[in-house]
Amino acid sequence: MTITAITGQALIGGDAVTGTATAFNAYDPTLGTAIDPAFHTVDAAQIDRACALAQAAFDPFRATNGADRAAFLEAIAAQILALGDDLIVRAMAESGLPRVRLEGERGRTVGQLKLFADLLREGSWRDMRLDSALPDRTPPRPDLRMRMIGLGPVAVFGASNFPLAFSVAGGDTAAALAAGCPVVVKAHPAHPGTSELVGRAIQAAVQQCGLPAGVFALLTGVGNELGGALVRHPAIQAVGFTGSRAGGMALMAIAAARPQPIPVYAEMSSINPVFVLPAALAARADTLATGLVGSLTMGVGQFCTNPGLVLGVAGADFDRFCAATGVAVGGAQPGVMLTPAIAGNYQRGLEHLASRPHVSIVARAPAAEAQGRGQPALLLTTGDAFLADRAMSDEIFGPASLFVACADVAQMRAIAESLEGQLTATLQMDAGDIDAAATLLPVLERKVGRILANGYPTGVEVATAMVHGGPFPATSDGRSSSVGTAAIQRFLRPVSYQNLAQALLPPELRDVGDSAGWRRKDGVLVQSSK
Amino acid sequence: MTITAITGQALIGGDAVTGTATAFNAYDPTLGTAIDPAFHTVDAAQIDRACALAQAAFDPFRATNGADRAAFLEAIAAQILALGDDLIVRAMAESGLPRVRLEGERGRTVGQLKLFADLLREGSWRDMRLDSALPDRTPPRPDLRMRMIGLGPVAVFGASNFPLAFSVAGGDTAAALAAGCPVVVKAHPAHPGTSELVGRAIQAAVQQCGLPAGVFALLTGVGNELGGALVRHPAIQAVGFTGSRAGGMALMAIAAARPQPIPVYAEMSSINPVFVLPAALAARADTLATGLVGSLTMGVGQFCTNPGLVLGVAGADFDRFCAATGVAVGGAQPGVMLTPAIAGNYQRGLEHLASRPHVSIVARAPAAEAQGRGQPALLLTTGDAFLADRAMSDEIFGPASLFVACADVAQMRAIAESLEGQLTATLQMDAGDIDAAATLLPVLERKVGRILANGYPTGVEVATAMVHGGPFPATSDGRSSSVGTAAIQRFLRPVSYQNLAQALLPPELRDVGDSAGWRRKDGVLVQSSK
Repeated sequence: MTITAITGQALIGGDAVTGTATAFNAYDPTLGTAIDPAFHTVDAAQIDRACALAQAAFDPFRATNGADRAAFLEAIAAQILALGDDLIVRAMAESGLPRVRLEGERGRTVGQLKLFADLLREGSWRDMRLDSALPDRTPPRPDLRMRMIGLGPVAVFGASNFPLAFSVAGGDTAAALAAGCPVVVKAHPAHPGTSELVGRAIQAAVQQCGLPAGVFALLTGVGNELGGALVRHPAIQAVGFTGSRAGGMALMAIAAARPQPIPVYAEMSSINPVFVLPAALAARADTLATGLVGSLTMGVGQFCTNPGLVLGVAGADFDRFCAATGVAVGGAQPGVMLTPAIAGNYQRGLEHLASRPHVSIVARAPAAEAQGRGQPALLLTTGDAFLADRAMSDEIFGPASLFVACADVAQMRAIAESLEGQLTATLQMDAGDIDAAATLLPVLERKVGRILANGYPTGVEVATAMVHGGPFPATSDGRSSSVGTAAIQRFLRPVSYQNLAQALLPPELRDVGDSAGWRRKDGVLVQSSK
Repeated sequence: MTITAITGQALIGGDAVTGTATAFNAYDPTLGTAIDPAFHTVDAAQIDRACALAQAAFDPFRATNGADRAAFLEAIAAQILALGDDLIVRAMAESGLPRVRLEGERGRTVGQLKLFADLLREGSWRDMRLDSALPDRTPPRPDLRMRMIGLGPVAVFGASNFPLAFSVAGGDTAAALAAGCPVVVKAHPAHPGTSELVGRAIQAAVQQCGLPAGVFALLTGVGNELGGALVRHPAIQAVGFTGSRAGGMALMAIAAARPQPIPVYAEMSSINPVFVLPAALAARADTLATGLVGSLTMGVGQFCTNPGLVLGVAGADFDRFCAATGVAVGGAQPGVMLTPAIAGNYQRGLEHLASRPHVSIVARAPAAEAQGRGQPALLLTTGDAFLADRAMSDEIFGPASLFVACADVAQMRAIAESLEGQLTATLQMDAGDIDAAATLLPVLERKVGRILANGYPTGVEVATAMVHGGPFPATSDGRSSSVGTAAIQRFLRPVSYQNLAQALLPPELRDVGDSAGWRRKDGVLVQSSK
């Protein structure tokens, strides 16, 4: 099957259907022009149909075994690759992101589908546990067995800033499908054509693997009603979202107010503090400046892990670092941002921060001639001023960073303690900084999902040990990760089986498990037999 | 140290302090009299002090290793046993529960502390993961390591119905302390003396193990302000609660409305359906009746897992089962309930259910002469009537059960589908019922935390494979269990470490881990070296 036509339709129940509500078009932020064809916002009945089909598909879908679900994820990956360059060209037009970035992102998207396929074949994501009966104990102990099952249909909101890796077939979708949960995606209206292409690829994989059509749906639309109706729908059992703090908070409120509240995994807001420790600052201020600006301006700063806050101890070394960073920022170029709205918000956020008392602008890239561009910027304040003004720790989504000249390492620690939850914290450190780093670490562990040394927070590895998460408001639920294999756990819950006949037990919990994988038997991990 | 005096005080920061707000007394429900001494409700400053000390204790407490924390849990167990019979006598007076039950519950309380101690020594609760650096890859992959850490100070609400096993040193406290989280307990006002004794035992263990005094506090009081202030306190990072649906919902709302929302693990409401399948019903209606009434009337029905709903296919076998159950219920005795309020609620719930259309009372134990007793009762309706009246599925906390005469197994399945989330579902089945059970299972897996065959839902084994949880409203968070080793996961979150120097890594994540335990290295589980 070749998928290249973009029709502007939603994908529900194996069909392409045209929404009946507000029409809208994709927009090319580079050219500043609308892109055809028009898309259409789905109506309440269409949302209901997608959710009802997802609910009906849940039992048969979760009954598939790990190997079958792995094959399905790999089929999605193959279908995405089969879209060929049409996908990249469309994503470039809709996002303003360059080809090399989108090709890399496609690789990541396909790679994480394959990673979850491997996880499904390995099997220990099921957390299988068996406690033997002790009939002679007083009272007798029953035979108890446990496994994880999927939560139910999951609503996934495509993110604006990763039109492939955090969108229709992105991390949330891959994790939910791996967990055995049907997925209803709300396409991000900034890249509806990219979404449709990828949605059709998933739809083709569903058909190819003989799965119920309700396993996947793609809903199109603008406005907040669609997302609200989706999260309110009784069939939906969990929500995955990456976006603004206001958007995430709105979904959390809707989910909590349902007759049956459901979990929301919203990744929302992070300024990703970078702690430049004294020995590292003394040894390599210039290379630190270059590396930092590379991380800051990459993708026009449109990463959740963008380094928005940089702390060092005031003094000659810090001045040199700040000056070198300023030179690099001043020489950077404004870049096309994902949407005019994002560019406008960036500009307003920057002006608001620059207007705070004791904040100065160190450097700013040349102004763009065209609208919709983001101008890299470096701002400076003091540790005392930062601690006195909570507004300085608000996220500015874009290529801006605030340097903070601290009195000493103790003040860096006090600032770390004052911060809200973050996705990441970075230590730039040399051997002489070990003690300073050790005083920061307990605070950082409480505040962030990932602590990194001598690197930059952008570039999130899709791996077993990755945590892309963190305490509120970095995410709505700091108990989880949205990147890497740990993400599957967000969509699982445990079920225990007591004294069930072998024939009624799930195959992987029978005395002779039908799947490879580790099981915890009477408290001890053992490899189950085939 | 010998602890026997009950002073009516709260326990904060290693001290005993007297609350300054409303005074109250324990009450003996058997005698209908107040018990001295008076207790006092803590004030806002005392709540704040307990929480601030817990926050200060968090970093040093979580830095203790698994063996040290295991020794602490065992010291608590030893201190509880050292309270001797004073504890049992006081708990009997405050709860009306019999000696044998409370001695068993003490054994369970001590046993679960030891189970978590074993879990800490085994080490895999940390979910340690290591992904090796791939310096030659493009782009290079960093060294990534992950482990679980505690969420922070936990507020635990003692439950009325398990004055030992779900109270001050109960499952929530044991799981939170095992996770490295300081605990602030709100004592249930129905057993304040029992709470003080156990609180002093924990306080003694904290001192004996040289831990910061803020690791544990016990707050005393009546009214809703105390609990609300505790959940609102910024130091508190999670909540454990077992009680009413209204109480749990109130705490969920408070937690969600905080500037930083926190997880609430509330176990609230369950009617624990029992599906008596046709072949079992034909073969052993009389023994089923006897077993059911034993489960129903045990502890005057004051269990979260009490079998409040029993479904069978209408016909002669069902009539025989119902009649035999009615005889047994009619011959049962009313029992002292935990508090007059609980007895009053039970009576009102029973009258409300009996007043629904198409509900009849089959049998009722003789009326009690004294107040505060619960009268076992058996009620009957039809599957059609049940499906038409949602009020019939409300929990009645006490020894009442509603029998439902269904048209067929398909209607039993429809009723299962109509139910809200439950802690348990029970299948009474014989070999001839396998097919019927198989049609029910997918529904039950979606609805409940534990599915059991040919037993009764009361009697929750503290084990590795136990799930005492279930979808809302059985609990506020169906992703977890409040009994068994899985309970530790409720109080954990993952942290990832990228390219950190060995000296800065937590000992268990270094190349040579200092603790026994499994680690996932490059995706493969391996036993770490000592």
